[in-house]
Amino acid sequence: MNQGPARIEINEVGPRDGLQIEKAMVATDDKVAFVDALSECGFARIEVTSFTSPKAIPALADAQEVMRRIRRKPGVVYTALVPNIRGLERALECGTDEMNLVMSSSETHNRANLRMTREQSLAELTAVLRAAGEAGAPCNVSLSTVFGCPFDGDVSPDEVMRLAHSLVDAGAVGITLCDTTGMAYPTQVAELCERAARELPGAALTVHLHNTRGMALANAVAAWQTGIVRFDAAAGGLGGCPYAPGASGNVNTEELVHMFACMGVDTGVALPPLMDVVRGLPRLVERELANPLIAAGPRLATHEPPAWLAERFSPG
Amino acid sequence: MNQGPARIEINEVGPRDGLQIEKAMVATDDKVAFVDALSECGFARIEVTSFTSPKAIPALADAQEVMRRIRRKPGVVYTALVPNIRGLERALECGTDEMNLVMSSSETHNRANLRMTREQSLAELTAVLRAAGEAGAPCNVSLSTVFGCPFDGDVSPDEVMRLAHSLVDAGAVGITLCDTTGMAYPTQVAELCERAARELPGAALTVHLHNTRGMALANAVAAWQTGIVRFDAAAGGLGGCPYAPGASGNVNTEELVHMFACMGVDTGVALPPLMDVVRGLPRLVERELANPLIAAGPRLATHEPPAWLAERFSPG
Repeated sequence: MNQGPARIEINEVGPRDGLQIEKAMVATDDKVAFVDALSECGFARIEVTSFTSPKAIPALADAQEVMRRIRRKPGVVYTALVPNIRGLERALECGTDEMNLVMSSSETHNRANLRMTREQSLAELTAVLRAAGEAGAPCNVSLSTVFGCPFDGDVSPDEVMRLAHSLVDAGAVGITLCDTTGMAYPTQVAELCERAARELPGAALTVHLHNTRGMALANAVAAWQTGIVRFDAAAGGLGGCPYAPGASGNVNTEELVHMFACMGVDTGVALPPLMDVVRGLPRLVERELANPLIAAGPRLATHEPPAWLAERFSPG
Repeated sequence: MNQGPARIEINEVGPRDGLQIEKAMVATDDKVAFVDALSECGFARIEVTSFTSPKAIPALADAQEVMRRIRRKPGVVYTALVPNIRGLERALECGTDEMNLVMSSSETHNRANLRMTREQSLAELTAVLRAAGEAGAPCNVSLSTVFGCPFDGDVSPDEVMRLAHSLVDAGAVGITLCDTTGMAYPTQVAELCERAARELPGAALTVHLHNTRGMALANAVAAWQTGIVRFDAAAGGLGGCPYAPGASGNVNTEELVHMFACMGVDTGVALPPLMDVVRGLPRLVERELANPLIAAGPRLATHEPPAWLAERFSPG
């Protein structure tokens, strides 16, 4: 089997991508504690919050307070979603390390999710990239629906690359290839990752996967085999998409970390404290989270044999 | 990305591996209807039932009646689990096409699951293989826990291969490498599949995966990339293991079929009738089955854009 890189980095997006869609209003204290607990796990990056309009996403209206109050662990990059110039200003005021801008690669999803055409979004993000550049703040762009759109179906890789080139030319230091509603499949992931790496050698590429159709880990392996070293993931598989009924959330961070650890790939993340964080999520989001890895334990967490076994097979 | 074979075969094990562990007593009529519906989906093989002692598994006491009453579709191989000579006799009486014998590659799991040491199992299976050979009935052997044992932890590939060689020498036409409790990970799957194919060139190899830790489809891709063409799977992800608390069931047939279809690999199985079968499972087993693919639909089952979109972006 083709091996990918020996070391990968995980960007934990649960506090932003996860909490923004939850019905429960999570208290500011609990958000800060969630991020602080994640900081102890060894993530390369944590997407802390979103500087969208508090009117649009009331659940994250306390974005600045959260960003100010988290305990910053040296070496961890604390990022936030920034939709526009106003958001950038708010993010800069509270010392966000890196900005994550977002637009869709498919027209209908961009209109539904961002209330703009893609060309309007491109103009807006170009302005944000310019302002961030002047402020010395690095920006990544998450390009949604690159492996398929829940409205438009397949998205042309040429179109994805056209947008990615425009954004990198405008100053983005990285591009995240987002499988927003879990439509990606392994051979497709490998092809687009290879092409993006070839055409954008200067950009840091991240892959963002959802597990809607069970393929998240298979897609992660496919991306890793092409050399991708940066993965988004959400603790407990939090997240989803309001425009794709039935779509489950992001790839589970704990399953991603566990799989790569089994394969001898260093993620930097320690599984036991991460599993503790995941065990606390149902209280945080006020709903049950189906979590097979938590239920079953890591693969080498062995069980005691049934009690009758020793007697039945005793030498006497 | 390394491509595997253009065509694979799926062995649907839900009626046996799934139903044997369900609490609900499924009526004989419903079992027959379940198998008949599966026969219309295009499977290469269907594991119909198990000829274990009715005392040990009362749920499958009607094994002969089920095997006699199913409507046999030409081209489909109808198999059954056969634990011993008595089971072989019962299986032969009702015209089972192929026998599936079973033992574990780890000592403690074999003792717990089969109430025998591995050497006792090997002797028993050798006797069954001889008798089946005399009767002209082909036998596959499912070798459990080859990627890890819930009691003993990692299992030595040397030990797995020793048992596999013994069983093939004794007359088994195929070996199924079983990840009984979902402990397999992709690089491990690739290594063992490559070794088994190299050392047992005359044996038909099947891979049997569980999704306990989210890796089932990733493992399936890894196996496929080494050339494996035969996969066990259970509709709706039925199944589990009584000795591994929290362990979820077999890889979902519908997710496996969907993924390979996305990748352009011919499984022979048509997804729409299979999804109809899966939608009927909660009634059959009298419990809810979490089923993300059924909830979300196949990847290109697109949605209508929100109604406000047309007005907002109208040319007027």
